[in-house]
Amino acid sequence: MNDTLSRLASVIEDRKSADPDSSYVARLFHKGTDAILKKIGEEATETVMAAKDGDRDEILYEVADQRFHSLTALAAFHQTPAQVLTELERRQAPDGPEEFALRTSAPRHGEKH
Amino acid sequence: MNDTLSRLASVIEDRKSADPDSSYVARLFHKGTDAILKKIGEEATETVMAAKDGDRDEILYEVADQRFHSLTALAAFHQTPAQVLTELERRQAPDGPEEFALRTSAPRHGEKH
Amino acid sequence: MNDTLSRLASVIEDRKSADPDSSYVARLFHKGTDAILKKIGEEATETVMAAKDGDRDEILYEVADQRFHSLTALAAFHQTPAQVLTELERRQAPDGPEEFALRTSAPRHGEKH
Amino acid sequence: MNDTLSRLASVIEDRKSADPDSSYVARLFHKGTDAILKKIGEEATETVMAAKDGDRDEILYEVADQRFHSLTALAAFHQTPAQVLTELERRQAPDGPEEFALRTSAPRHGEKH
Repeated sequence: MNDTLSRLASVIEDRKSADPDSSYVARLFHKGTDAILKKIGEEATETVMAAKDGDRDEILYEVADQRFHSLTALAAFHQTPAQVLTELERRQAPDGPEEFALRTSAPRHGEKH
Repeated sequence: MNDTLSRLASVIEDRKSADPDSSYVARLFHKGTDAILKKIGEEATETVMAAKDGDRDEILYEVADQRFHSLTALAAFHQTPAQVLTELERRQAPDGPEEFALRTSAPRHGEKH
Repeated sequence: MNDTLSRLASVIEDRKSADPDSSYVARLFHKGTDAILKKIGEEATETVMAAKDGDRDEILYEVADQRFHSLTALAAFHQTPAQVLTELERRQAPDGPEEFALRTSAPRHGEKH
Repeated sequence: MNDTLSRLASVIEDRKSADPDSSYVARLFHKGTDAILKKIGEEATETVMAAKDGDRDEILYEVADQRFHSLTALAAFHQTPAQVLTELERRQAPDGPEEFALRTSAPRHGEKH
């Protein structure tokens, strides 16, 4: 799996500054970060809709789309999928904050805002 | 990375029917699928907000949260992260539909609805 | 204001079954309810983005878009903007549930799910 | 209807700087603009979910919640519901840009970004 995400992140990285006519990713980057962020919102809504339909194939498809656009957003901010997995690992560590969260409360980082 | 996602998926699977008071995931499943879907929407909004703030740490945190709740949604519908990666692989295949998409058009599966 | 919303609701109602090539609303209804719901998600994300930019004109524009697509969603489910205002009135009534909410807690109807 | 929205906007305005313990709106403003924006995202997801359930009462409730939080966001940016209605009126004017949109294309203001 590692390979899939890393490879996809490389493909996205390569296309960041490619000719907008040459690829979907190049076009997204050409439109700008806001275009990527809109996709984040769209894919979430589409995932929720697929789930309400109970359509498993569509759920997989939409979660894949979500993942794909998250990778694009990470690339826009010079971050990698490996960093996200490190964060998820950190939360699962026996003494990690999320281990606690997984046991007793919601991982609402945002709440502290 | 593979290991991280698979391990996290197992943890979530284990907690699906655990005592709601014992973990965040158990509580989410106890509340029901709608509670999970609301988190999908919430995390997308929070990712967009973190990106608009240009706060890289927060972006990582929110993408991790998004990933975590996607895994929870997949578990609710008896799907696995491996299936999502297979879908992403399929799109990248030389003759895959998404290879085309990556070159020339938007992966708007939803559009056919 | 009443007139604006009622008039707009009538325009939308008239176009529900019009030729899809004749108007944006007719096209939305022709695509189906899911197309309308996707717009609800999109406009919310765009409103959040405009607000994060602190762009007041854009905020107004996006809130208007949100309002417009909410009216379309209401029409899809045979509901009217007057009913929404009645609900808002009800909440403001001295003995209404929302008067309480406005004073002491969040109007999370969804929580009871 | 005019009266409902204006009255509600006044109530919200009054509570902007009230004691956070005194009302839900005061608490939202105390938490800050991000808390309001998160509600915009949440209510959109909840509206979509209610619509997928085909639950008309819940749709009304969620659209009312959306409206309420939009008014709160407008207040945060010193804008009024009257301005939103003016924007909607403008679009409906015989020579307005949205009259065109209503006939032939999508009101994707965001597209110009």
